[in-house]
Amino acid sequence: MHLLKMSDLNQSDIERIIQTAERFKSNSDCEKHQGFIANLFFEPSTRTKLSFEMAEKRSGYQTIDFLTESSSVQKGESLYDTVKTVESLGVSAIVIRHPKDRYYKELEESVQVPIINAGDGKGEHPSQCLLDLYTIYEEFGRFNGLNILISGDILHSRVARSNALTLQRLGANITVSGPSFWQDAELGIPYAPIDEVIHKCDVLILLRIQEERHDLKEEQRDYLTSYGLTPEREQQMKTESIIMHPAPVNRGVEIASELVECQRSRIFTQMNNGVYIRMAIIHELLQGGVTNESITKKCSII
Amino acid sequence: MHLLKMSDLNQSDIERIIQTAERFKSNSDCEKHQGFIANLFFEPSTRTKLSFEMAEKRSGYQTIDFLTESSSVQKGESLYDTVKTVESLGVSAIVIRHPKDRYYKELEESVQVPIINAGDGKGEHPSQCLLDLYTIYEEFGRFNGLNILISGDILHSRVARSNALTLQRLGANITVSGPSFWQDAELGIPYAPIDEVIHKCDVLILLRIQEERHDLKEEQRDYLTSYGLTPEREQQMKTESIIMHPAPVNRGVEIASELVECQRSRIFTQMNNGVYIRMAIIHELLQGGVTNESITKKCSII
Amino acid sequence: MHLLKMSDLNQSDIERIIQTAERFKSNSDCEKHQGFIANLFFEPSTRTKLSFEMAEKRSGYQTIDFLTESSSVQKGESLYDTVKTVESLGVSAIVIRHPKDRYYKELEESVQVPIINAGDGKGEHPSQCLLDLYTIYEEFGRFNGLNILISGDILHSRVARSNALTLQRLGANITVSGPSFWQDAELGIPYAPIDEVIHKCDVLILLRIQEERHDLKEEQRDYLTSYGLTPEREQQMKTESIIMHPAPVNRGVEIASELVECQRSRIFTQMNNGVYIRMAIIHELLQGGVTNESITKKCSII
Repeated sequence: MHLLKMSDLNQSDIERIIQTAERFKSNSDCEKHQGFIANLFFEPSTRTKLSFEMAEKRSGYQTIDFLTESSSVQKGESLYDTVKTVESLGVSAIVIRHPKDRYYKELEESVQVPIINAGDGKGEHPSQCLLDLYTIYEEFGRFNGLNILISGDILHSRVARSNALTLQRLGANITVSGPSFWQDAELGIPYAPIDEVIHKCDVLILLRIQEERHDLKEEQRDYLTSYGLTPEREQQMKTESIIMHPAPVNRGVEIASELVECQRSRIFTQMNNGVYIRMAIIHELLQGGVTNESITKKCSII
Repeated sequence: MHLLKMSDLNQSDIERIIQTAERFKSNSDCEKHQGFIANLFFEPSTRTKLSFEMAEKRSGYQTIDFLTESSSVQKGESLYDTVKTVESLGVSAIVIRHPKDRYYKELEESVQVPIINAGDGKGEHPSQCLLDLYTIYEEFGRFNGLNILISGDILHSRVARSNALTLQRLGANITVSGPSFWQDAELGIPYAPIDEVIHKCDVLILLRIQEERHDLKEEQRDYLTSYGLTPEREQQMKTESIIMHPAPVNRGVEIASELVECQRSRIFTQMNNGVYIRMAIIHELLQGGVTNESITKKCSII
Repeated sequence: MHLLKMSDLNQSDIERIIQTAERFKSNSDCEKHQGFIANLFFEPSTRTKLSFEMAEKRSGYQTIDFLTESSSVQKGESLYDTVKTVESLGVSAIVIRHPKDRYYKELEESVQVPIINAGDGKGEHPSQCLLDLYTIYEEFGRFNGLNILISGDILHSRVARSNALTLQRLGANITVSGPSFWQDAELGIPYAPIDEVIHKCDVLILLRIQEERHDLKEEQRDYLTSYGLTPEREQQMKTESIIMHPAPVNRGVEIASELVECQRSRIFTQMNNGVYIRMAIIHELLQGGVTNESITKKCSII
């Protein structure tokens, strides 16, 4: 009923959500719902917030927004009380981003409407993961056997963890890359320097260096040449392979600026797909489509 | 035409607004209006702002929001000019919260669309008072003869003053409680320590300690045991009596944390009722239902 | 396709936009569009933001808002990437205010949906100019031969430049006034002290002293008597002449407080007209009505 982490979804759930997103993308008229969805953002975010807002409104919902800056959180109210208050207002679902890992633990039993996790601390960001899956599926029509390289700050990235484990579950071969001190040994994904594997990957997922989480002004100058996507590395990629990035991009750090909109970049496509995947998530949760213990284990999309 | 303070409403007006709220709560489809309502909040507020926004949108209005942080008030514009500007944009009504007592004095003659006071300094907060009245009426079906205890910072509370005087007008017996230095002698309401009256009250209205208005870190530690609702005190309450709080709650200060959602707590019910009462207020003001000098003095609800 | 500066519009375009605004003002039902318009404000603004929002919603669009304070710009994202992201979300048009002069240079080729400039640095503010034109046209039915005095900080004003050059293009006689150190020699508009020309003008456009751009606390005290509109000067104006101001007004600086709502003031009328002119702009851009190189040079409104 909630969507808190990728392990809430089995392969059949993922398949259904992607198919719904495809349907919405090919046909701008979707079923119109009625009611309200609340967006509670306890961390700033441009694209995730706007993408959810678009998805909600295009699904027919009205939205109410709660941003930390202009709220009673300043008065020291607990997350639990804020969320219960918003639920009491009569909303149909609540989208939450919060800096605390697994903030939803204290909410999942008590809140009766669906919670959609829009990012928890260094935890997960399932709608981002699903839009990445959708973008890959749109390109290749499958996950099974794809070589996917995820490069950057694996350790602190919400995206890396969810994507790596879910794509592996769907049959892809995952490799991680980037500075060794940002690797996550516990993740159990093989590591390789970017120059050894760039020519083999079908999908290169670049991660954002999060300046606000690190203090790396100095190191950033060398990041592009050591670990980032330079034009030289881009030329070693296979003809059909694509580049992805969760954005916002640090131009000249993770990727050379002139490559952001190159032929194989799907960075802005990801944004566009994000709206459809979030419409699909809303549709699934509010129509009861998601089954946490689904019986159907066949999954035609892998 | 405006709703600025509870004395703008006679008993018949209050009765009609509560009945309208009940009608909206029992039937989620209300008449749909067209047009815009502006929300001007010169103080932060989660629940009041969101509650009005829900009420407006559920009534069919679109909303435009003006929050101090991102506005020309930074450029030193007067309240009067801001409100006249918003009126000139073509809105049907204006909801205002402002830190200045009776900020509306300079507006009530000049502004041609209804103003709904969402809180003026230490003055009034009529929609909060009406939702409290509605919550009590929903429970007991009357006000006449009810014993109502209001406990806390009577002196600085917008809620205390409006509720005490209005409930008294409607026939209830009001007692106030809490620290003696927060009592308001001019209010003319009898005072009693909470332990002397808790067993007799039908309704216990707890007030919020406003940290942002006081500097009481030290005293707060002892507040719960001296004046707040502990489990021991809760057990002395009558079977049918209820607990209310305007929220946000300071858990462990005004009320023991485990009582916030106890059987007799109506705290989240108040939130829910707030949307319906605000829909009713909007309906009344924009349909011309409120009569400042109403002839009908009979009031079947007291 | 974009509206970035007044020189994007020929006389016929201006005529058509004003006529559309008139039509919308006389008939509150306009054609309802479907879709989304994004408002990206990188500088605070009350009236421009709210006016666009009203115009968009009254035109049938839903809105998504991006205000600098609560956004990824804090994460150092470039304007280009932010705008491309918003475009990727699927909006029909993008309204932008930004502190940088001609911020739109890097956008106009790459962004495929209409951009409406809501103010660029010390550059232009075309929707403000158009609403001023509309307010003048509504009063006099023509521009040709009107004597228009623009008084104040000509050098730093977005409004002065656009209005002066456009009104001149439409056949009006423009004079500028105000402190000599705020004049703009390159503009090529004749200067005169206010007391020499106040009795002759049909329209007096007062400009705002922008405290946030100057440090003039001291000088402001004398501004009203030296350069502003005092009651004495107002009495020298012709019977039919009008006063305009882009607002927010510094009462007692550019204009004596008691004159803000005097008979000949159109200051709040400008606000009201602003909504209709922005509806008309949206209508034109999204219906393809604007022709950057229009053949029709006749213009019946001058």
